[in-house]
Amino acid sequence: METPAVVVNVDTPSGSYNINIGEGRLEHLADTIPENTSAIALITNSTIAQIYGSHALGVLRGTGKPVIQITLPDGETHKNWKTLNSIYDELLTNRFDRNCVMVALGGGVIGDMVGFAAATYMRGVRFVQVPTTLLAQVDSSVGGKTAINHPIGKNMIGAFYQPIAVEIDTSVLGTLPSREVSAGLAEVIKYGMIIDADFFSWCEENMHSLMALDNDAVRYAIQRSCELKAHVVSLDEREAGLRAILNFGHTFGHAIEAALGYGQWLHGEAVGCGMIQAAELSRLVTHLEPQEVSRIKSLVHASGCPTQAPDLGSDRWISLMQGDKKALAGAMRFVLLNKIGEAVVHKVDADTVRKVLPA
Amino acid sequence: METPAVVVNVDTPSGSYNINIGEGRLEHLADTIPENTSAIALITNSTIAQIYGSHALGVLRGTGKPVIQITLPDGETHKNWKTLNSIYDELLTNRFDRNCVMVALGGGVIGDMVGFAAATYMRGVRFVQVPTTLLAQVDSSVGGKTAINHPIGKNMIGAFYQPIAVEIDTSVLGTLPSREVSAGLAEVIKYGMIIDADFFSWCEENMHSLMALDNDAVRYAIQRSCELKAHVVSLDEREAGLRAILNFGHTFGHAIEAALGYGQWLHGEAVGCGMIQAAELSRLVTHLEPQEVSRIKSLVHASGCPTQAPDLGSDRWISLMQGDKKALAGAMRFVLLNKIGEAVVHKVDADTVRKVLPA
Repeated sequence: METPAVVVNVDTPSGSYNINIGEGRLEHLADTIPENTSAIALITNSTIAQIYGSHALGVLRGTGKPVIQITLPDGETHKNWKTLNSIYDELLTNRFDRNCVMVALGGGVIGDMVGFAAATYMRGVRFVQVPTTLLAQVDSSVGGKTAINHPIGKNMIGAFYQPIAVEIDTSVLGTLPSREVSAGLAEVIKYGMIIDADFFSWCEENMHSLMALDNDAVRYAIQRSCELKAHVVSLDEREAGLRAILNFGHTFGHAIEAALGYGQWLHGEAVGCGMIQAAELSRLVTHLEPQEVSRIKSLVHASGCPTQAPDLGSDRWISLMQGDKKALAGAMRFVLLNKIGEAVVHKVDADTVRKVLPA
Repeated sequence: METPAVVVNVDTPSGSYNINIGEGRLEHLADTIPENTSAIALITNSTIAQIYGSHALGVLRGTGKPVIQITLPDGETHKNWKTLNSIYDELLTNRFDRNCVMVALGGGVIGDMVGFAAATYMRGVRFVQVPTTLLAQVDSSVGGKTAINHPIGKNMIGAFYQPIAVEIDTSVLGTLPSREVSAGLAEVIKYGMIIDADFFSWCEENMHSLMALDNDAVRYAIQRSCELKAHVVSLDEREAGLRAILNFGHTFGHAIEAALGYGQWLHGEAVGCGMIQAAELSRLVTHLEPQEVSRIKSLVHASGCPTQAPDLGSDRWISLMQGDKKALAGAMRFVLLNKIGEAVVHKVDADTVRKVLPA
């Protein structure tokens, strides 16, 4: 039996929308399409297309609107201008106008790229996020960050652009590889670390249920993650200040991804590992208690993410992290923890950072 | 002696900023750079760089901030992804962060492309418009439309993104080729046609002074054009309705540009000619008085713009216009005039459109 969706509202200066969370939400996808929509583009990747493509297409055709499907190659390595341009080509060839709606069916790569396509096609059209990975459901589909990668850095080209709705169908997680579940859990536990100590404890107690994809546990973890992210984003949509705390672990994580080549480690895996490094750096700089560092390590480990950072050589590490776009010119800034549940942005000199890099 | 700048404020939901208009405004460029700017990129084209590049660079260096100059190839044919990407490359290579400011020194192509680079570099950084053509001064630098072209259509990829300031130095018009003066005047007289009959009459009376670049006449024409555009944009930043009237003549004009290859006719020339076609269509559809059609033809002619549309074959015309991004799916919509000073958006069937195409 289908239970009613849990609804989380996201309210930002540039738009308000709902996140609907529940089993079987794919069935309700047509409800997110506004009446005055001229045409719909279902945009997904080759992997997701095989599993959910024809079902989603059928549901969208139920609107009576023209629907096309655009299938992109799968993977972070394709999150670039070439793939983005293939979306523009299809839309223009099919004469899609400003009143079209794009539906992003996939993980974070699809969501970021389709979001950026929507932000820039004819100077902006509407889009719906249908995240199919846990990571996308708890993080990238919420808050309006869209982007593609540049050879010099991840997500360097993008826009803040909000969807008109987010549909989170928890049933799709059943087909998710376990590495991707772990990668998503990294972002879930991040919210506890930076802003909600009670949720961190809840994650410690329920990590086995989460790893087993227990439906109630997963739904609550998604709901709480979305609520916490929506709260932060509503206060600071464009990352003028507070929103930066969501990047806890990401400066280290992005360096790992950039060094190993995007797609070798999953984004969430790199962030999981990066959070341990950020916790260790917090111990040195903001005096995070060693016991809390241990709890963070244990929880990352329990989530199935890697806990040992790759040895890139410390100069390469520093160089990669200084290129991170959260850096102010020349300086290195990190999101650190005062304690579990309380994050702060802090400038750190390179010598101190070197102390937490793999020897 | 330098006279004080005329200031026109633009107030939109996504930002408020001033347009400063006067002789010698380039000298004051440093005043537009905010205190917390980390670095400045002066972005211009190879033609403008030779005339004003070193002067503008010197003024910006007076801020004490790091300044780089990025010189792009000149012309509409370079308003594409490749050129845009060369901006990203330079900024990333020079480690420009989110607190940088881009300065767009050039005509509409530079303004549109740098504006889009600013909208999308690291999800948005600040930029200043310094338009050096009359057309850019009265039109493209105001209102936040940014874009690049796609092989299938002009300005298909872009964003609404407002600058933090617009500096209009009327002295730079002295070096402008006369074709470009005429192209700019086409947009000036457009404002009279669509929204201000008194200004249309003023243009009729002062066209000789404008063509001769009489300073008082030119400054007033720029000021009034910016005021009228700012008024429309403040009511409808994202072209949900009213703003579309600014596209009077543009559906025909874009078809001319697309058919002949961007850059063969200047944008303003194509719009000038397109306004005559739109006036003729208005005579058929919204019953614009034949006498007013004649006044429009005469004023376009007096501005030095072409008045005879190229014969593309009517099927090609229709096909090109249906691809215009202002079109709703399948239908053809035009900005037409009820009378001089009053524009309306109207759906028109293809057979009626054919009547005003070159035989």
